[in-house]
Amino acid sequence: MEVDFSHIKVVGFDADDTLWVNETYFRETEEKFAALLEGYETKNKIDQELFKTEIENLELYGYGIKGFMLSMIESALDLSNGNVPSSTLMKILDMGKQMIAHPVEVLPGVEEVLTALMPKYRLIVLTKGDLLDQERKLEKSGLKRFFNHVEVLSDKKEGNYRGLLNNLQIKLDEFLMVGNSLKSDVIPLINIGAKAVHVPFHTTWAHEMVHKKAMESTAYLELRGIKELLMYLK
Amino acid sequence: MEVDFSHIKVVGFDADDTLWVNETYFRETEEKFAALLEGYETKNKIDQELFKTEIENLELYGYGIKGFMLSMIESALDLSNGNVPSSTLMKILDMGKQMIAHPVEVLPGVEEVLTALMPKYRLIVLTKGDLLDQERKLEKSGLKRFFNHVEVLSDKKEGNYRGLLNNLQIKLDEFLMVGNSLKSDVIPLINIGAKAVHVPFHTTWAHEMVHKKAMESTAYLELRGIKELLMYLK
Repeated sequence: MEVDFSHIKVVGFDADDTLWVNETYFRETEEKFAALLEGYETKNKIDQELFKTEIENLELYGYGIKGFMLSMIESALDLSNGNVPSSTLMKILDMGKQMIAHPVEVLPGVEEVLTALMPKYRLIVLTKGDLLDQERKLEKSGLKRFFNHVEVLSDKKEGNYRGLLNNLQIKLDEFLMVGNSLKSDVIPLINIGAKAVHVPFHTTWAHEMVHKKAMESTAYLELRGIKELLMYLK
Repeated sequence: MEVDFSHIKVVGFDADDTLWVNETYFRETEEKFAALLEGYETKNKIDQELFKTEIENLELYGYGIKGFMLSMIESALDLSNGNVPSSTLMKILDMGKQMIAHPVEVLPGVEEVLTALMPKYRLIVLTKGDLLDQERKLEKSGLKRFFNHVEVLSDKKEGNYRGLLNNLQIKLDEFLMVGNSLKSDVIPLINIGAKAVHVPFHTTWAHEMVHKKAMESTAYLELRGIKELLMYLK
């Protein structure tokens, strides 16, 4: 595909799994959760039940660690038919608190890319999830100094992007979004007439998956790593 | 005190317990929580323990219902020495979900005040807490149409206000904040050189209380109800 980013003035970056590691910690905690409950059900059933509970609660709780903690507690009560010991529930609370307090691991190449782009583009962070969590991670990451604006959205649908770009007075054809989720960072942007680049992370939450078929008619650039961005943005 | 609001161009409103009822639902849920655990401790001890847990978790969880739910679960496990039955924990999860899904009750006079001010001032909402919760409440309240901008802050300290007013290019001496919390809506604004009006709500969370002494040298206007605002903002 032909790539013309000559009109781009503002570059938006997703945060979790684009600027720093995130999904990996959720996967690790899910492993620990399954190990804690292995006396009650198979690992497969535990994974399925937790995912089902998370999706059922998504509208109420939104994205983020606190909702994940509440869904783990609810699943533990369900999967054990109410027999889960209190000590296990305490461990689940501790696992969640450890996730919140976890150090931030910036992904390779991110600082180099931001350093190169900062003098030429207005850089912003567009992330979804828990406001306090995301602010804290940005602070801990040491990346705050690169960004002109940080926005935490409750969701990343077309309407959220349209509203935000309008608020920030950014023209659609001058905006490029960079992120690891086709569903949240790429498709909605292409659909509203902005540009988007996909930088896959090795792990994607099932809820963020899209069918290949849905992507057939969508033109976007896919990079093997964030550093390739410098080949296209001069 | 003399009141001169002639330079004011932008009016910021706190949301919870200023535009709509909020603290009442927390108090009601705390009552139910104490009733659920009355077999283990006195009501007084249960209240104290829950408040202590909430404050300990505030830095990690921030403000909002999900953190409150997690603190209730943790307190229930603690207060019962791990003997709380699963059915009680399920009830706690349900109580929290009901709070999130609760209809929004707009406070008396709010619509009248916003209707009168909208043609003459730029109106914004400045609230803290959970992003998704606050967006949902604003949507349900029917008040969204009055506001030019809505900002959910992770906290309401001087730095949060300074950063936000700077982002929105609002001059300090042209800004008036209206809210029910002296600690969050009044004192930080006065301290940074903006104006603030206090509209007390009948219930204030202990964490939001300030000592009378701390207020002695702070000049602010206190109203008996939000409608009195129309006496000062023409």
